[in-house]
Amino acid sequence: MLGHIIEDGATVLLYSLKGKSWLVKVDSRNEFHTHFGVIKFSDLVGKRYGDVVKTNSGQEMILLEPLLVDYLMKSERKTQIVYPKDIGLIIMETGIGPGSIVIEAGTGSGVLTTAVANFVRPTGKVYSYEIRPEFIEIAERNLKRAGLQDYVVIKNKDASQGFDETGADAVLIDVGAPWTLVKPAFDALKGGGALAAVLPTINQAEKLATELKKAGFVKVNTIELLCRSIEAREGMSRPATRMIAHTAYLMFARKSFLKVNTSYNENSCDGSEK
Amino acid sequence: MLGHIIEDGATVLLYSLKGKSWLVKVDSRNEFHTHFGVIKFSDLVGKRYGDVVKTNSGQEMILLEPLLVDYLMKSERKTQIVYPKDIGLIIMETGIGPGSIVIEAGTGSGVLTTAVANFVRPTGKVYSYEIRPEFIEIAERNLKRAGLQDYVVIKNKDASQGFDETGADAVLIDVGAPWTLVKPAFDALKGGGALAAVLPTINQAEKLATELKKAGFVKVNTIELLCRSIEAREGMSRPATRMIAHTAYLMFARKSFLKVNTSYNENSCDGSEK
Amino acid sequence: MLGHIIEDGATVLLYSLKGKSWLVKVDSRNEFHTHFGVIKFSDLVGKRYGDVVKTNSGQEMILLEPLLVDYLMKSERKTQIVYPKDIGLIIMETGIGPGSIVIEAGTGSGVLTTAVANFVRPTGKVYSYEIRPEFIEIAERNLKRAGLQDYVVIKNKDASQGFDETGADAVLIDVGAPWTLVKPAFDALKGGGALAAVLPTINQAEKLATELKKAGFVKVNTIELLCRSIEAREGMSRPATRMIAHTAYLMFARKSFLKVNTSYNENSCDGSEK
Amino acid sequence: MLGHIIEDGATVLLYSLKGKSWLVKVDSRNEFHTHFGVIKFSDLVGKRYGDVVKTNSGQEMILLEPLLVDYLMKSERKTQIVYPKDIGLIIMETGIGPGSIVIEAGTGSGVLTTAVANFVRPTGKVYSYEIRPEFIEIAERNLKRAGLQDYVVIKNKDASQGFDETGADAVLIDVGAPWTLVKPAFDALKGGGALAAVLPTINQAEKLATELKKAGFVKVNTIELLCRSIEAREGMSRPATRMIAHTAYLMFARKSFLKVNTSYNENSCDGSEK
Repeated sequence: MLGHIIEDGATVLLYSLKGKSWLVKVDSRNEFHTHFGVIKFSDLVGKRYGDVVKTNSGQEMILLEPLLVDYLMKSERKTQIVYPKDIGLIIMETGIGPGSIVIEAGTGSGVLTTAVANFVRPTGKVYSYEIRPEFIEIAERNLKRAGLQDYVVIKNKDASQGFDETGADAVLIDVGAPWTLVKPAFDALKGGGALAAVLPTINQAEKLATELKKAGFVKVNTIELLCRSIEAREGMSRPATRMIAHTAYLMFARKSFLKVNTSYNENSCDGSEK
Repeated sequence: MLGHIIEDGATVLLYSLKGKSWLVKVDSRNEFHTHFGVIKFSDLVGKRYGDVVKTNSGQEMILLEPLLVDYLMKSERKTQIVYPKDIGLIIMETGIGPGSIVIEAGTGSGVLTTAVANFVRPTGKVYSYEIRPEFIEIAERNLKRAGLQDYVVIKNKDASQGFDETGADAVLIDVGAPWTLVKPAFDALKGGGALAAVLPTINQAEKLATELKKAGFVKVNTIELLCRSIEAREGMSRPATRMIAHTAYLMFARKSFLKVNTSYNENSCDGSEK
Repeated sequence: MLGHIIEDGATVLLYSLKGKSWLVKVDSRNEFHTHFGVIKFSDLVGKRYGDVVKTNSGQEMILLEPLLVDYLMKSERKTQIVYPKDIGLIIMETGIGPGSIVIEAGTGSGVLTTAVANFVRPTGKVYSYEIRPEFIEIAERNLKRAGLQDYVVIKNKDASQGFDETGADAVLIDVGAPWTLVKPAFDALKGGGALAAVLPTINQAEKLATELKKAGFVKVNTIELLCRSIEAREGMSRPATRMIAHTAYLMFARKSFLKVNTSYNENSCDGSEK
Repeated sequence: MLGHIIEDGATVLLYSLKGKSWLVKVDSRNEFHTHFGVIKFSDLVGKRYGDVVKTNSGQEMILLEPLLVDYLMKSERKTQIVYPKDIGLIIMETGIGPGSIVIEAGTGSGVLTTAVANFVRPTGKVYSYEIRPEFIEIAERNLKRAGLQDYVVIKNKDASQGFDETGADAVLIDVGAPWTLVKPAFDALKGGGALAAVLPTINQAEKLATELKKAGFVKVNTIELLCRSIEAREGMSRPATRMIAHTAYLMFARKSFLKVNTSYNENSCDGSEK
């Protein structure tokens, strides 16, 4: 139960009833300023998660233990991130879980990296490739804040020249020219291993699907997830007026040793088969 | 590497290039019949995952190691199941991961149960409540086939009378009258703990959102995920003609000790805040 | 061909290549100021539609003849308007066309009124009911600017007390309590006549569907149209990042003389039948 | 009012309460057989639209006057048709209405042709081009059944060689290689005239958008409409389980005399401008 008491140095999600939140590190010598007023960190120490504190201007704030998704959405970022809806499906469709060995091409801000690191614990590992050193620094800060740095090895290497690892359970691709990674992914994956790619444009999807089939990958599925917020309010329920209409197409495939690949696309949205 | 060789008794996903697949248990004394022809199981033993075999009528089949999602989609089922797109977001939004203590109300066919069991490994646990014994039997068979039965305790009890556990990280609700579980969920969750509900109708969402806010839950978000299959083919790409338009609304919330709850709905689809 | 030459007094859509547009009335004694620079109206007189003019700061503007949709989207408005995607389906599903007699409850800003007036020309008529005089003034200005005032009679009356007309081809409902208009609509419609309603919330749809079936209406269909913008650009095509996720649910029905109504909902999105 | 009484020879939509319907021509010497039983046409004569008749097996059928949309959805067809949701938006975005002169390339089964013919009445005209004589026959039968043949001239000519007409208000394109019609469309349209295209694949949209901009077209918008059926039922409302996920992309543009076109795409889904 002690773990549920907030200590000095803890990371806390301050959630305002106005719908805004902040991810903060409790430092009892300091205070936290928002446009809803000021909170003294020393007032947080000893409180339970779920407790309510007030700012000096009387606004209520809930103290929440940050979940993985809070770390992701509050990440420092210099790139387009992968959204939780897409991360969730990537985890599901690639079979990533405790113990998985995962390779990622395109660390970027490390948001997908951080999420995958969380799910491969405690015995798995993520090997993430990134050619731009400035992104590696950001990703490392994000990983460290979430406490997941021990499960990730970031490499400042060009993945299109090949991955160092073999026998991987899954390869994740989030780069501009994903088709350059088909051969490296094939070589690094175990037989039957899973590939997932994050593809902003349909042209990337077209080109990658073609190359994956040529290389022997099967179960090549391209999917788009739309996430709609619903205002569920008694007597006046309706979808929210606006939404994010597009983040990225997701493509999934499995490595096979097929020589001539005549495989079909398959709809895996609903598990139905042709 | 031995783990990648198929042994007698292994469970294998036979994937036809026509887009159809079967989850089978290799029994070297038997053979497997499909409308694409017959395969002798003894021919599979010693093959690698990713290898190709032919039926007696010449159809190629790929031998794939089943992923969690394959076990889920091939589950024995007597109820509407929770789909991978929805499971992925539930895992993300509730913070479920290795070590989590999760309570589920409404085991049903055990599909969500199986998925959650996979992600709480190796030190977490799922306590799942189901009042209909016939579903418990199905769920137990599904869990056992996926090898995840050790991470789940199924209880033949009425969850609306209260859960036995306290201090849980997350409570998942998939029953027809989810609002009857708000008090039990509050009592069972740790401060700040996460709740997720699977809600086929908007009326369930309306009623549950109201009750959650009354009980002190905050960050009450209702979301709908639409999954669209894309035909990514060079020079002729387009969305698939048909899709599943609705599986369920998903609702997420966090437990707080608020007395008077004036919290807003928040859109968590894209992490944007009001 | 003279009609294609811009004369003094004409209404013109000035379209900037930056994607912004203005609906202006040409007055050769004045000039038009935008943040892209100034245009002298006298420079427009004698130009063709489709021609290009430059502002004093060198920005190009295309001179376009306003279409109905331009009048609608540039309407003066004090209410939520009905969007073109929804208007188009309303016209299609109600059979409104040249000669139709249409009743509307809830003139609002007159956007739907203006659109329907356009399509019933030259021999049809729209009778539109509105209880708030301030909206009637706005609607009349919008109708007049589009040149369609002769096809509409606006009545400052409470439609829930009954319509004055009978034998109407269609009744359109866009008010907060649409179920109060079921009896008036039934009485005003000809046998088999069409009803359409614009419903922001699902609760309105639920209640209206119930009342329509009780009154004998059949083919009661509820539909939601989502409009997604696509960035079609060579080598980098993708859906736009953001979209309007919800305008309103649309409900359609046909009047019958059924005594006991056991009719099903029918999906008219795709014309498929159960 | 006489027009509301069904006479021998009338075309009637027989609507079953089970949700199925038939478009029939009343022939008092014959009877109509369905799997819901038999109806004598002579029983229909003298009935009002909206009246109910029973089959010999006791099933109730409603007698409805066919709307344009009923003729469209019951069309004889050998091609993919344009759906009402898409037709409605095409009518709105092109400004087609009473008196419009419209050119269509790709008559196909004549479904879009029939719809447009309805809206240009009584003084407009549709000139429709089709190279396959077998489709022309079908289109003519569909037009005649809807009573709209007088408003259409179908030409068995290759539209890519140029249209015979000039000064048209709108050009509609529904062929496999729409970019071959950009020059013919430009030459046939009046200044500022509207173009609409029906495009199953994103590749067609990409190529057409590029060619349209090269030719001087502005306001080039690409849109996708998703139509979702809602089950609005008291206490258990939800979207229907399945839907048509894709019919076609729609592209709209306006003819300008621009020499160098640097125009942006514009989102016309919601009338918002950049």
